[in-house]
Formats: sequence, structure tokens, C-alpha cells
Amino acid sequence: MTHVQISHGGGGQEMGQFIRQLFFSRFGNEILKRDEDAASLSISGPIAMTTDSFTVSPLFFPGGNIGSLAIAGTCNDLAMAAAKPTYLSCGFMIEEGLALSELTDIVDTMARELSRIDAQIVCGDTKVVPKGSVDKVFINTTGIGAILRDGVSAHNLQPGDCILVSRDIGCHGACVLAQRESMALETQIESDCDLLWPAVNALLHADIEIHAMRDATRGGLSAVLNEWCQTSQVQLVIDEQSVPVTDAVRGLCELFGFEPYDLANEGTFVLAVPAKDCDTALAALRQHHTNAACIGTVQAGTPARPILCNPWGSRRYLDFPAGELLPRIC
Amino acid sequence: MTHVQISHGGGGQEMGQFIRQLFFSRFGNEILKRDEDAASLSISGPIAMTTDSFTVSPLFFPGGNIGSLAIAGTCNDLAMAAAKPTYLSCGFMIEEGLALSELTDIVDTMARELSRIDAQIVCGDTKVVPKGSVDKVFINTTGIGAILRDGVSAHNLQPGDCILVSRDIGCHGACVLAQRESMALETQIESDCDLLWPAVNALLHADIEIHAMRDATRGGLSAVLNEWCQTSQVQLVIDEQSVPVTDAVRGLCELFGFEPYDLANEGTFVLAVPAKDCDTALAALRQHHTNAACIGTVQAGTPARPILCNPWGSRRYLDFPAGELLPRIC
Repeated sequence: MTHVQISHGGGGQEMGQFIRQLFFSRFGNEILKRDEDAASLSISGPIAMTTDSFTVSPLFFPGGNIGSLAIAGTCNDLAMAAAKPTYLSCGFMIEEGLALSELTDIVDTMARELSRIDAQIVCGDTKVVPKGSVDKVFINTTGIGAILRDGVSAHNLQPGDCILVSRDIGCHGACVLAQRESMALETQIESDCDLLWPAVNALLHADIEIHAMRDATRGGLSAVLNEWCQTSQVQLVIDEQSVPVTDAVRGLCELFGFEPYDLANEGTFVLAVPAKDCDTALAALRQHHTNAACIGTVQAGTPARPILCNPWGSRRYLDFPAGELLPRIC
Repeated sequence: MTHVQISHGGGGQEMGQFIRQLFFSRFGNEILKRDEDAASLSISGPIAMTTDSFTVSPLFFPGGNIGSLAIAGTCNDLAMAAAKPTYLSCGFMIEEGLALSELTDIVDTMARELSRIDAQIVCGDTKVVPKGSVDKVFINTTGIGAILRDGVSAHNLQPGDCILVSRDIGCHGACVLAQRESMALETQIESDCDLLWPAVNALLHADIEIHAMRDATRGGLSAVLNEWCQTSQVQLVIDEQSVPVTDAVRGLCELFGFEPYDLANEGTFVLAVPAKDCDTALAALRQHHTNAACIGTVQAGTPARPILCNPWGSRRYLDFPAGELLPRIC
């Protein structure tokens, strides 16, 4: 058997074997293997919950695949709430005829990423649909975990806060764009797809007062900064020159008329901390990426929008991204 | 705007408006409206977690639609673990061009079903993919809730237990089959799609000792009984004549060569209780469906398989369903 068949999702004998061989053997843990209608878990204190569906095309790209995205995407949203990613569900929607070798690679990647942060898949669902009903495979992951620090929130930005980014921006969007256009670039752009929990955990241990964290996924840095301005009713003054963007990403943006601020990221986050904690936070982030940077500050002024300042003294509003961005980026 | 556009899933301004207008206005609750990366929740004691993806075709059928399925499917899996369905995530994967009126009907149905059992959508995700990448709309729901009773498990069937079904079987599978074949039946078959929590809650309040519960979804009654035999290493002796099947479902099965035991259900569950509690359990179930029935008993014998006994004294094994059952049934 080399390809997924309709019977693998039918609820009968073939599905049972398929699930045991493909998923249980790789995600194997005592909770999952009990194979009940629902997993039985224990978490004490306040719980964070988040969900994400993944539809990326192509399935495999430099720096990751839909499986690493599915683990990073959901675990990162938990990490952004200062919650330890602990228990995940996964739902596979598979097109009949998908090569089993591809699916196996994806599941292997997911298992490897989970083990890096000691998280577990505790329940799952597999649907196989006839050819043409879905393009290859979509994955949903939903995660829960204990919230380890109160008050980290998009509502909590305060005038005087510093705005930091954890690394150079736009790599995931640029990587998928280059793949789709089959571009032979001088420098191959790798997705930034990665788990953010190790960096967040370091920030928590360094006892930094964290006001807000958000990973800059669809909509990129622009969306995060605009959402924060609206939610906390503050102005963000961003020093354009401080925002880390690689030459490769900048070049691709110029070619296609994109702004690096609008490109999706899958392992890059934005952080708001009081000025007193800026240097400590930067030092912690640079343990993970040397090009983490402080890119601006929070002000009380109106309008509540992000403002980009360039080195020649000109200022412009950074807008919400609009229109048809790249579909199926994640 | 009458149809879903790619920009509604792009992560920019249009997505924000789309989500607020379509989802927040209907699922509106304080947790969801905070619009953070992850919802912040509180549950005390052991937690059940379950996930399900829904790909049913057609989207609308007599007795429900993909939205009522998405709420019932996940809430029912929690109920089967004796857990109160409390917090749900939902992930929408939408094909560009889907009529907004259809999507609105689906979301309205979901909101109505949630309110019946006081459950909430607390986080969500919306992806819009280009025409042809998915057929209309797929939905994932994942749910968590507090486990109110210990020990309800597929591992817990005991010799002497009675096996009950909560109503007549096979309606969902028969309904979708009839729709797909555009059959004009004398009696229209309605899906059984429904929330099981009210019936389970009644069983818990009646202080019935529940050994196992499982809803008979994909794979139908056959799959549940076979799984229970394997997991608890018991034999199930089923009185074929006691299994409630309507004439309409039986007729359709004869026409297409299906067994009603193999057909999917979306609001029908199987229950194992000690003989002493059988009558009380039946009475509680019949408050919800008058044709709930005791269909057999658990024995210690081998092989660990379900055995169907007919009124003329013949016995046969009830096998796991196998082969290509109905794809996209849920």
C-alpha cells in the first residue's frame, strides 16, 4: 500500500490499522493509545486554548513542511499567551491518493517537533475524501496548556514600552512565494518556521515583565502592530531602519511589490516590555537569534496607529495589510 | 458582498471585519471577543479533550447541516467521556466563492446548538483557499470539558452488563445516502444529528453506574461493538430483533446492500451498564427517544467478538465494517 485510500477514513477495520500504524506509532503516548472518544487530561490553574488549520501549498518548502507548521503554529499561539504548550489534538483531512511516503514524512516531522518541547498529541481525527475534494492534505491542530504568567495581552501595551522583534521578518512568506514562482534565487530563502516556546520560556525565567507577545503570522508585522494599536489604544513609533530584514527577503519584495512588513512569519514574534527590561529581553532573544532587535516604542498619542520613521526624518503610517495577500501561506 | 473572497482569509483588514461580522456577532462571548492569540479558560479537575473534522457532502441535509454536525460531533465525544461540553474551538477551511448565505446559515445553526447546552466557541481560525482547493467548506471543532464521572471507558465493560442503544440506528448514513442518490422515498429519512449531553446528563443525575458509552458515528454500531470487544476482551451477545431500525432505513439498506449496523449515526449512542441499572437507564433514555432499547449482554467467553442472535436461533459474528463505506458522511 503506497497511497491513501478512501477506506482509511471509513471508520472500519482499515481505518483502525491505518491510524495505529501511521499515527500511534509516531505520536505514541499513554493518553492517545487508550483510544477513547475523548482524552483524559489534567492541568491545574488557568488554561490557554488555541486552534489553527493549515492549508499551505506546496506541502514541503525549505525550512519545513505542513507538519512543522501545524505544530509550530498552534504551540506558538499558546506560547504567546505565556502558556506551556502541553496537549494537542490533530485533525487530518486527506485527499484520496496522497502518497503515503509524503504523509509519513509530515507525521515524522510533527513527532520530532513535539518532542523538542515535551508536548503531546492526545487525540486525533482522520478524514479521507475523494480525489478533488481537498488539495492533498489539510491539518488542524488545537492546543491547550497552563498559563504561567498573568496579564500578557494585546490589551496591555503601555506608553514607554519598547517593541522588540525576535528575528528578521518575512522569511516564511518570501520562502513560499519563491517556491510557487519556482524562482532560482542566488540565496535560497528558508522559512522561519520554528517553535517559540524555548525563547518565551527564557524570557519568563529571566523575570522580564512582559506586557504583550504576538507571533507575526498571516498579515505579518503590519497586522500585529495595527491590532495592538487598536486594542490598547496607543501609538507605536517604529524606527524603519531597526527592523531586521535580510537582503534576500528585501530583494524578493521589490521584485513582487510586497512590503516585508506584510509577509507572513511562522517563527517570529513581537514583544512589548517596559523600557527597564529592554536590554535583558534583547539578550534573552539573541540567545536564539542574533538579529533580534528593538524596533520602536509605545506612545500615548493619537491616532492609535503605527508610524514608520525613516532615517531621513520622514514619517508614514504603517497600514493593515489589505487585499489578496498570498493565499495558502500557512 | 455575497460570496467569500480570498482576502477574507488573508490576515489583513478584510479578515478582521469578516470574522467580527460573521463569527463574533453569532458566537459572541467575552472570551472570544478578547481576540487574543489564545483564549484564557478555567476548568477544575480532570479534563476531557476531543477533536473532529467535518467534510460532509451535501452541506445541508434533512435534520441538519455541517454546522450542527460540527457541534454535535465534538460535544458528543465529550459527553461519551461523561464530560460536560464547555469550551470549543472551530476552524473553518472555506473555498473561495462559497455563498455567504450558506456560510451564515451554518454559523447560525452552530450558535443555536451551542446555546442548547450552554457551551461556547472560545477560539477560532479561518482559512480561505482558492477555488478547487477544498470542496465548499470543511470545519474542525475541538472541545474540552470537565469530566464529571470517573471510569467511563471502553476498557470497562464487565460480564453481565447490559448493552443499550439510545434510539433507532442508521439514520444519518441512510439520510446522506438518500440525498446523494437524489432518491424520492415515500418517507424522507432525517439524520439523527443531535446533542447527546441532555441524555447523558440525565443518566448521571439518575445515579446510574455507567461502564462505557460511545456514540456510533462512522462505522456505526458494528464498529463500536467490535472495538469494545477488543478493548475490554469480552464477548457481546446481541439480540438482532431488539436492535431498533426503522422500516425506511431497513428498506434503503436492502436497496443498496448495506447493513444498518454499519451505517453512521450522529446522535445515537451505545451504553454499557450493570444489569441492576438497566431499567432505570432505559427509562432515562426513553425520556429522549421512545425507541431506546436494551439489545444484548456482555459475556466473558471467547472469541472477543460481537455475536448477533436472530429469533430463529441462528448466530453469526458481527464484523467490523470494511472497505469503502460512504465517504464524506460527516
